[in-house]
Amino acid sequence: MTNLALAFLAAGLGAGLSIIGAALGIGKLAAAAMDATGRQPAAGGDIRTTMIIAAALIEGATLFALVVCILLATKAA
Amino acid sequence: MTNLALAFLAAGLGAGLSIIGAALGIGKLAAAAMDATGRQPAAGGDIRTTMIIAAALIEGATLFALVVCILLATKAA
Amino acid sequence: MTNLALAFLAAGLGAGLSIIGAALGIGKLAAAAMDATGRQPAAGGDIRTTMIIAAALIEGATLFALVVCILLATKAA
Amino acid sequence: MTNLALAFLAAGLGAGLSIIGAALGIGKLAAAAMDATGRQPAAGGDIRTTMIIAAALIEGATLFALVVCILLATKAA
Amino acid sequence: MTNLALAFLAAGLGAGLSIIGAALGIGKLAAAAMDATGRQPAAGGDIRTTMIIAAALIEGATLFALVVCILLATKAA
Amino acid sequence: MTNLALAFLAAGLGAGLSIIGAALGIGKLAAAAMDATGRQPAAGGDIRTTMIIAAALIEGATLFALVVCILLATKAA
Amino acid sequence: MTNLALAFLAAGLGAGLSIIGAALGIGKLAAAAMDATGRQPAAGGDIRTTMIIAAALIEGATLFALVVCILLATKAA
Amino acid sequence: MTNLALAFLAAGLGAGLSIIGAALGIGKLAAAAMDATGRQPAAGGDIRTTMIIAAALIEGATLFALVVCILLATKAA
Amino acid sequence: MTNLALAFLAAGLGAGLSIIGAALGIGKLAAAAMDATGRQPAAGGDIRTTMIIAAALIEGATLFALVVCILLATKAA
Amino acid sequence: MTNLALAFLAAGLGAGLSIIGAALGIGKLAAAAMDATGRQPAAGGDIRTTMIIAAALIEGATLFALVVCILLATKAA
Amino acid sequence: MTNLALAFLAAGLGAGLSIIGAALGIGKLAAAAMDATGRQPAAGGDIRTTMIIAAALIEGATLFALVVCILLATKAA
Amino acid sequence: MTNLALAFLAAGLGAGLSIIGAALGIGKLAAAAMDATGRQPAAGGDIRTTMIIAAALIEGATLFALVVCILLATKAA
Amino acid sequence: MTNLALAFLAAGLGAGLSIIGAALGIGKLAAAAMDATGRQPAAGGDIRTTMIIAAALIEGATLFALVVCILLATKAA
Amino acid sequence: MTNLALAFLAAGLGAGLSIIGAALGIGKLAAAAMDATGRQPAAGGDIRTTMIIAAALIEGATLFALVVCILLATKAA
Repeated sequence: MTNLALAFLAAGLGAGLSIIGAALGIGKLAAAAMDATGRQPAAGGDIRTTMIIAAALIEGATLFALVVCILLATKAA
Repeated sequence: MTNLALAFLAAGLGAGLSIIGAALGIGKLAAAAMDATGRQPAAGGDIRTTMIIAAALIEGATLFALVVCILLATKAA
Repeated sequence: MTNLALAFLAAGLGAGLSIIGAALGIGKLAAAAMDATGRQPAAGGDIRTTMIIAAALIEGATLFALVVCILLATKAA
Repeated sequence: MTNLALAFLAAGLGAGLSIIGAALGIGKLAAAAMDATGRQPAAGGDIRTTMIIAAALIEGATLFALVVCILLATKAA
Repeated sequence: MTNLALAFLAAGLGAGLSIIGAALGIGKLAAAAMDATGRQPAAGGDIRTTMIIAAALIEGATLFALVVCILLATKAA
Repeated sequence: MTNLALAFLAAGLGAGLSIIGAALGIGKLAAAAMDATGRQPAAGGDIRTTMIIAAALIEGATLFALVVCILLATKAA
Repeated sequence: MTNLALAFLAAGLGAGLSIIGAALGIGKLAAAAMDATGRQPAAGGDIRTTMIIAAALIEGATLFALVVCILLATKAA
Repeated sequence: MTNLALAFLAAGLGAGLSIIGAALGIGKLAAAAMDATGRQPAAGGDIRTTMIIAAALIEGATLFALVVCILLATKAA
Repeated sequence: MTNLALAFLAAGLGAGLSIIGAALGIGKLAAAAMDATGRQPAAGGDIRTTMIIAAALIEGATLFALVVCILLATKAA
Repeated sequence: MTNLALAFLAAGLGAGLSIIGAALGIGKLAAAAMDATGRQPAAGGDIRTTMIIAAALIEGATLFALVVCILLATKAA
Repeated sequence: MTNLALAFLAAGLGAGLSIIGAALGIGKLAAAAMDATGRQPAAGGDIRTTMIIAAALIEGATLFALVVCILLATKAA
Repeated sequence: MTNLALAFLAAGLGAGLSIIGAALGIGKLAAAAMDATGRQPAAGGDIRTTMIIAAALIEGATLFALVVCILLATKAA
Repeated sequence: MTNLALAFLAAGLGAGLSIIGAALGIGKLAAAAMDATGRQPAAGGDIRTTMIIAAALIEGATLFALVVCILLATKAA
Repeated sequence: MTNLALAFLAAGLGAGLSIIGAALGIGKLAAAAMDATGRQPAAGGDIRTTMIIAAALIEGATLFALVVCILLATKAA
């Protein structure tokens, strides 16, 4: 086993852990968004905008982390 | 064991962890969607649209991570 | 032990972890669906449609992950 | 120890983890089904149908995973 | 240690994990059944039927997993 | 160490994990039974019957798993 | 180290895990029993009977598991 | 290291895990006892009796497990 | 390393785990005691007696376990 | 394996753990933001400003940690 | 490495685990004490006395465990 | 592997764990800040000031820890 | 590696675990203190005194544990 | 690897664990502070003082632990 072995392991585990975080985070805020829409349908558009801004912040950091994983998964020796 | 052994391990664990995150996240937001629909059936269509947008954001990041796993699982030495 | 050993380990653990995620996610959203139906029987059909869409999204990603596992479990050396 | 050793380990752990997920998921949705029935006995038949659809979705993915485990447990060297 | 050692380990852990899942799942749904019965004694028979159907679904998958464990525990070298 | 070493380890851990599951499950459903009895003493007999059916389902699967453990603990080389 | 080493380890851990399960389970159901008694002192005797039946079910399975542990702890080589 | 090393390890960990279970269980039921007493001081004596019966059941199983630990901790080679 | 090494490790971990259990258990029941006193100051003396009985039960089992730890920590080779 | 192997492992795990934290934190505060907007649509703009300030604080520390990960992932021997 | 290495490890981990337990336990009961004082300022002195008795019980067992740790940390070979 | 290998591992894991703590902490307090603003928009400015003070306290300790990580990640042999 | 290696490891982990416990405990009781102050500003001084007594009890045990860690971190061979 | 390797590992992990504790603790108490301010803006100054005292107690112990980490991270052989 060379150094690459642990790089590959890190790529897989890192991607999995990142999705656990990102999906739970987006799931939580989207749940709140729909809950709020159900209570005040009139504010639906405004809430959806806020939801997309917040989800984009999470999505951005997640993709940043996934790029680290891609970088590790495609390393040459 | 060569480097590939840990790549295979990472592929399997990464896929499993990703689904834990994605399924719990989508499950949470879909639960909120149905809860809101049950309280305000009139806003049902609007809520379903929001649900699909949010689920798509999660689904996207998840597939991105699963591609990393596929990439590791099909590596040639 | 060759590379395959860890591929087999990954296949089993990955399948198990995927089902933990998928089953909890579908269980959560189906629970919300039945809760909402019990509160508003009139909207029962609409809620069941939403439930099946959301469950299909989870089921899809899960099968994607299980295919990665099958792929690892049936690897030839 | 050959490759099979870890395949056997994976079969057992995978089966156990799958049942943790599936049983908790079905338990959760069946609990909601009975709760809803207790609140609206008139909608009992409709709720039971929804419960069986959702449980079947979980049961399906679980059996898929258990087949992976059987496949690993009965591997020949 | 031969391959059988890990098969034995897998049998014991798999059986234990399966029971954790199954018992918690059945416990949860039976708790809901009794809660609902206590609130609406008139619907007691209907709820008990639903409880037994759901418990049977869990019990079925659990026995399927325990068979995998038996299969591993009684393997000959 | 021969194969038996891990069989013994599996027997002990499997028994412990099984009891964690079974005791928590029975504890949960019995708690609900007593809660329901306290709210509707008149339905006490009916609830106790349901409790014993559900507890028997858990007890059955648990003993099945403990038999696997006994089988592992008394293995001859 | 011979096979016995792991048998001893299993005995200790199995006993500890069993007590975690049993104590939490009995604690939960006894808490519910006292809660129900506090709300309906008149039904106190009936509830205590139910509590002892349920606790006996847990105690039985626990002792069964502890016997497995004793069996492992007193093994001769 | 001989077999005794793991016996000693098991004794310590088993004792620790047993106390985690027993203390949390007794703590939970005693909390419920005091809560019920605070709500119905008149039923205080009856509740304390129930509390001591339940605590004795847990204490009994715990001492049984601690005896296993003592047995392991004082083993001669 | 001789057998004593693991005995020392067990002593430290066992003491730590025991305190986690005992402190959380006593903390939980003392919290309930003070909560009940705050709601019914008149029953304060009666509740404090119950609290000390229950805490003594936990304290007793904990000291029993700590004695096992002392025994392991002061073992001579 | 040289020192780099563990640096690569650390990069992947660190990125994954960071995203778990960051996504859950932003998800929690964004959920509160939308909940508050749904209750007081008039204060929507003010709340969104506060949300972005707080999210930026988290995002900043997260990127700081991801830079440590990048630094480790691109280390030359 | 001699026996002392693990004694040192045990001392540090045991001290850390003990504080986790003790601090959470005292934190929980002190929180209840202040909550009760806030609801009934007149009973403040009585509640503080109870709080100090209970905290002393935890503190006592904790110091007992810390003494075991000191004993291990200052062992001579 | 030299001493540096573990320093690199520590740098990555330490950074990840720090962000888990910091993000959850800031997320929790910012959620409370927005919740309070939504209930009392008039006190919005005062609450935001408190939020920034508290967040700064967390941010400070976090950066202190990240500096330890940087220090470890850039160590020369 | 000599005995000191594990002493250093224990020092770091013990300090970290101690702070987890102490900070969560003080955080919990201080939260209750502020909650109670917000409900009864008149009793604010009395509550703050109680808070400082309880926090001091936790702080004391924590510093005791940190001294064990310092003792381990500065050990000479 | 010399003794220093584990000292470095301990420094990183200890710093990470400390921040998890400190950030969650301060986050919890600051959340309560803002919640109380939102309910009673008039007592805002008094609450902020209490918050800073409690946060300082946590911050102090945390810095004490981080100093242990710095001490380990900068050790010379």
